[in-house]
Amino acid sequence: MKQALSTLKRGAGEMEAKEELEQMMTSFLNKANEEEIELLKTVFKGIEEKRSGKYVSYVAAFTQMEAKFLPNGDYEITIPIQPLIYNHLKMVHGGITATLADTAMGTMISEKLPPDLSVVTAEIKMNYIKPGLGKYLRCVATLLNQGKHLCVTEAKIYSDKNELVASALGTFFIIKKQQKDSTK
Amino acid sequence: MKQALSTLKRGAGEMEAKEELEQMMTSFLNKANEEEIELLKTVFKGIEEKRSGKYVSYVAAFTQMEAKFLPNGDYEITIPIQPLIYNHLKMVHGGITATLADTAMGTMISEKLPPDLSVVTAEIKMNYIKPGLGKYLRCVATLLNQGKHLCVTEAKIYSDKNELVASALGTFFIIKKQQKDSTK
Amino acid sequence: MKQALSTLKRGAGEMEAKEELEQMMTSFLNKANEEEIELLKTVFKGIEEKRSGKYVSYVAAFTQMEAKFLPNGDYEITIPIQPLIYNHLKMVHGGITATLADTAMGTMISEKLPPDLSVVTAEIKMNYIKPGLGKYLRCVATLLNQGKHLCVTEAKIYSDKNELVASALGTFFIIKKQQKDSTK
Amino acid sequence: MKQALSTLKRGAGEMEAKEELEQMMTSFLNKANEEEIELLKTVFKGIEEKRSGKYVSYVAAFTQMEAKFLPNGDYEITIPIQPLIYNHLKMVHGGITATLADTAMGTMISEKLPPDLSVVTAEIKMNYIKPGLGKYLRCVATLLNQGKHLCVTEAKIYSDKNELVASALGTFFIIKKQQKDSTK
Repeated sequence: MKQALSTLKRGAGEMEAKEELEQMMTSFLNKANEEEIELLKTVFKGIEEKRSGKYVSYVAAFTQMEAKFLPNGDYEITIPIQPLIYNHLKMVHGGITATLADTAMGTMISEKLPPDLSVVTAEIKMNYIKPGLGKYLRCVATLLNQGKHLCVTEAKIYSDKNELVASALGTFFIIKKQQKDSTK
Repeated sequence: MKQALSTLKRGAGEMEAKEELEQMMTSFLNKANEEEIELLKTVFKGIEEKRSGKYVSYVAAFTQMEAKFLPNGDYEITIPIQPLIYNHLKMVHGGITATLADTAMGTMISEKLPPDLSVVTAEIKMNYIKPGLGKYLRCVATLLNQGKHLCVTEAKIYSDKNELVASALGTFFIIKKQQKDSTK
Repeated sequence: MKQALSTLKRGAGEMEAKEELEQMMTSFLNKANEEEIELLKTVFKGIEEKRSGKYVSYVAAFTQMEAKFLPNGDYEITIPIQPLIYNHLKMVHGGITATLADTAMGTMISEKLPPDLSVVTAEIKMNYIKPGLGKYLRCVATLLNQGKHLCVTEAKIYSDKNELVASALGTFFIIKKQQKDSTK
Repeated sequence: MKQALSTLKRGAGEMEAKEELEQMMTSFLNKANEEEIELLKTVFKGIEEKRSGKYVSYVAAFTQMEAKFLPNGDYEITIPIQPLIYNHLKMVHGGITATLADTAMGTMISEKLPPDLSVVTAEIKMNYIKPGLGKYLRCVATLLNQGKHLCVTEAKIYSDKNELVASALGTFFIIKKQQKDSTK
């Protein structure tokens, strides 16, 4: 650790920040339980993968989203169920299930659009059916309609036992990629 | 750091895990930029605050939710806008905005219910109006109706300029607190 | 007409009401165009069929809903497109499409439940995809989950060309049949 | 009645249609109960008012919508509760409540837009809170945001006792008035 820090010559402010962080880490490790250690590994892995460009957001990286198109044109994202995404009842937090559905639906459309176009979420509706329990959640997004400005999609979220955990319906607004203010 | 680890005598497996984690930390610190250092501080702070019982989930802890009832009975949660919750356009991820609304609505109801009752989200609808930009997001949840089994709530999410960023409408199902399977 | 009225001996108030109505009818017929004549036939047919018990509501009767279960357990309702259900753009009024979806989803569940149980709509979400044009709309409702208290359903509405016109997602609350106040 | 028909010289087909209708009317009147007579009066009144231009659709005419802007810019539509809009439990049909909300939200936006623009409903979400009982339903629509392409609105539906009966949240897509295919 010392060596790591000694190679840093980027300035006093950053030096201080890193020292502060090092102290936090030491303090953390002293008291860390198994769950916390696993969680922190996920965080470090996520930061590395965000750096490497595998993920475009920390949200995607920390939830360890794995995405692929299915043969029928649907889009699937799977996330492992881990303490990081629990709610107070130790099931997947409904907001994370919404994040999963939103990402699957939005990414699917962006991938299907010409490269200069992207989408922002106009609205999304989630119905929660069963608690998010087990090893992973698997979300399958389907494009219902691609219009000139609006795309309508649905998504189903399944447990590792293939039970329906949640169902989503959403509208996405097509933007030019430079249009970062996403004015709808 | 060395001392920290030397005090650990909980067994070889945990020892290994912590050593692996220490290596990840060192590797991380060597290459960390300012954003990543800030992010990791948030993570450590979040873990501490989850441990201490300030937060009931890592989702709430990492998004640094600050909650309070307003004089009129509404419930407000504020979260700082930080890279951890960005989407690929460097605005707040829509899934995080949904998480904020879901948490504000659900927590408000739980707090208003008798202590042996809690709620699970039956469904939630989010309309995204303006990009989540600025210093923080502020969500105000309002209870529209409390029934015997179902509660209907709405929430408005505002930017630090008090602009309406999103609007939510949701249904929550009342459960007994031990009823962890949340069968609706 | 005279004979019809002469057979009525139920009292002066009703007599008056019928005479007033007869005048309205005569006035109507004098000026009626083809669309209005067709519309009124639908109204009379609807009243007869409501009387006969074919329909449980005028809404169902006037929209001439024809319902059946499909072999896979889905439930289908078809309605002819007629001026009675147009909006100002001479397409099917979005509210009528919602009525169609709500009825299909709710009736399907009621039919699947034991005879002493029924449902009321807790919430419904409609996404409108294409204008409701052509000869008829066909709605197919699917039960996603039947819980102890809540049922989650989806519905797709198609045109006579089998194009997707709208998509719906809704939650229904199970009640005992005598529980007419539908307290949720 | 005879005189009414004898003045019609528009052709044999129309003559026949009117004669058929006259027979339906006579048959109807013979057996009509009070509810049916009231209902038919509403229908005739509605047709007259649609003819006169008071209403742009039969749906609005038969539900006898009365609309006005409120001083704060909100838009209010009131409808009397009548058997025509009952569901099988003799409360207002949820689809009619949706029709009321959809009309209030859409009309409000159209009235606020420049005269060459109108809107079509992209999506609408209804939460049903209390049964639609009493003398009338009153819907108050509020514009949450007017964008370049999308408008987000909410609506609250109240009973004659000012109880919240339903809450709505919807998205409307702005079109040029000639753009009748409403491609979004």
